[in-house]
Amino acid sequence: MSAALTLGTPDHLDRLLTLVTAFHAEEGIVMTDDARRAGIAPLLDGIPHGVAYLIGPPRAAIGYIIVTFGWSVEFGGMDGFIDELYIRPGVRKRGIASETLQSLPRALGDAGLKALHLEIDTENETAQRLYARAGFARRDKYQLMTREL
Amino acid sequence: MSAALTLGTPDHLDRLLTLVTAFHAEEGIVMTDDARRAGIAPLLDGIPHGVAYLIGPPRAAIGYIIVTFGWSVEFGGMDGFIDELYIRPGVRKRGIASETLQSLPRALGDAGLKALHLEIDTENETAQRLYARAGFARRDKYQLMTREL
Repeated sequence: MSAALTLGTPDHLDRLLTLVTAFHAEEGIVMTDDARRAGIAPLLDGIPHGVAYLIGPPRAAIGYIIVTFGWSVEFGGMDGFIDELYIRPGVRKRGIASETLQSLPRALGDAGLKALHLEIDTENETAQRLYARAGFARRDKYQLMTREL
Repeated sequence: MSAALTLGTPDHLDRLLTLVTAFHAEEGIVMTDDARRAGIAPLLDGIPHGVAYLIGPPRAAIGYIIVTFGWSVEFGGMDGFIDELYIRPGVRKRGIASETLQSLPRALGDAGLKALHLEIDTENETAQRLYARAGFARRDKYQLMTREL
C-alpha cells in the first residue's frame, strides 16, 4: 500500500470531496455540500493559504491531508497547520498516516516551512500517539482561543 | 489616546522593529536582529500570509498587532491568528488593547475572514480575561502539537 502524495488540482475535486465528506461524517462535522466545496475547491485552485494532497494512487486515493499555511514572527517565516488528515477505514493500521507524517514534513521543511502545527482532541489518545511518534510535541503551556467572525 | 490602526508598509519597518524588539525582550523571546527583521519585513512587503498594524499615530505608534492568515476547511474560508499584540508599557490599562480587539475582528470579518484564533499562556489570566471580554472562547477540548522543521 503506497502512501505517495499527489498535490491536489481542480481535476481531483470530486474525488477529494467524496473523501472529505466521509471524514466529516465520521467526525460529526456538519456542513452543506456547497459549504464543503467552498472550503476545498480554493485549495485545489492554488490559493496561497493551503494545499490538499491525495494519499495513494490519485485515481483511487486512500486518503488525503490538508495543510494550511500561515506565518510566524517567532519562527521567522512560514508555518503550517495540518487541518485534516483522513485514511479510508479499510486501509487503516497499516502505517499509512505515519508514513505521510514522516514524508510530508520533510518535503515542507525542504521547501522552507519553519514549523508544522495541529490541533488534537485532548481525549483522542490514538491520534496523540500517532503525532507524538511523528515528532510533534504537545504545547501544554498554551491554549487556543477562537472567535468566529 | 487613539487606538487607530494603520496597515504597516515597508516605510514602517524600523519603527515596528523597535516595538517588536521591546515586546520580545518583555516576553523572553530570544532572536537575533536579523531573524527578527526576517520575520517582520515580509509582512510589510505584502505577502499573503499576514499583516502588521501599528496602533495609534503611525509616526509615534503606541503598539502593534500582527495577524497571520490561514485557511480552514471547516470554517469554509480564510481564518486568522493573532500572532503578536503589544502595547507600550506607559500607555497600558487605558483600554487600547480592548479597543483594538473590538475594531480589528470587525474589519477582518467584513473583509471575509471566518474566524480569528490566538494561543494564550494558560497561566496568563490577565490576557485570558482580555480576550474573553473581546469574545474569544477557550477551546479546552483541543490541544496544540507542534513540530519544528
